Amino acid sequence: MGVTARCVAMADLPDCLYCRKDERLHDLMIEIGSLQVSTLYLFKEQTHRGRCVVTYREHINELFDLPETELNRFMQDVARAAKAIKQAFGPNKINYGAYSDKLPHLHMHLVPKYEGGEKWGAPFEMMPANKKLLPEAEYLPLIAAIKAALR
Amino acid sequence: MGVTARCVAMADLPDCLYCRKDERLHDLMIEIGSLQVSTLYLFKEQTHRGRCVVTYREHINELFDLPETELNRFMQDVARAAKAIKQAFGPNKINYGAYSDKLPHLHMHLVPKYEGGEKWGAPFEMMPANKKLLPEAEYLPLIAAIKAALR
Repeated sequence: MGVTARCVAMADLPDCLYCRKDERLHDLMIEIGSLQVSTLYLFKEQTHRGRCVVTYREHINELFDLPETELNRFMQDVARAAKAIKQAFGPNKINYGAYSDKLPHLHMHLVPKYEGGEKWGAPFEMMPANKKLLPEAEYLPLIAAIKAALR
Repeated sequence: MGVTARCVAMADLPDCLYCRKDERLHDLMIEIGSLQVSTLYLFKEQTHRGRCVVTYREHINELFDLPETELNRFMQDVARAAKAIKQAFGPNKINYGAYSDKLPHLHMHLVPKYEGGEKWGAPFEMMPANKKLLPEAEYLPLIAAIKAALR
């Protein structure tokens, strides 16, 4: 019964990795937890230690398409997640980027930058040619550190 | 008297182009107007027609360093400006980016993207090698269109 209901709901969802939370999403990121109106993920590509994504709960693309209270909550989620990354890993700056030209679902990249490190003083690359993927087990302490900082 | 007072105030400001609003700023952008807690500028580099910047009124760098009500107001300003750019020029998506690793004053780049145009589906470049600067007079109708859409 549960399975049937889930299949029907999935078919009704837009063909969007953030809505369906399918393999396309799991290839890119690992869920850390739910915030007020969004979900926080660790990005698997870790050139910038602690890089995350915050995705809005609905399939809406532009910040100005959110009702005011939702925009406030979404950005409070973004700020809370950024503060947790700062606390967990001590970067010198967090970069914030929301693009999604071709994937019309609001999400904000949170990219910790380290003085003297990769792309310091320049925008981060969405997916560097020299990707830094970690063995699965090495993502766990990063997630644990962010969760601890969110508490 | 007014001049003296201004000089004293300037000397007290951080050496920051967004605080001092000096030539460094005027080389890069043109003021469109004040929003609730920020200033909206047209970016002179116009590879992406309608590109703007929203700068926060105080010398604070991270979103999470803003009190909650200020964060809400700043992001309402950002969303309002983005909606005005959408209305004025009809891009397919607005990109939002706040980096400022080396220039510690909160500002959000608003970059309209056009399907099939430059960097569609990829992050915008901060300053393309092939800069698109316009004759000064050609900035005026862009500014007028954004002002009209803000009303």
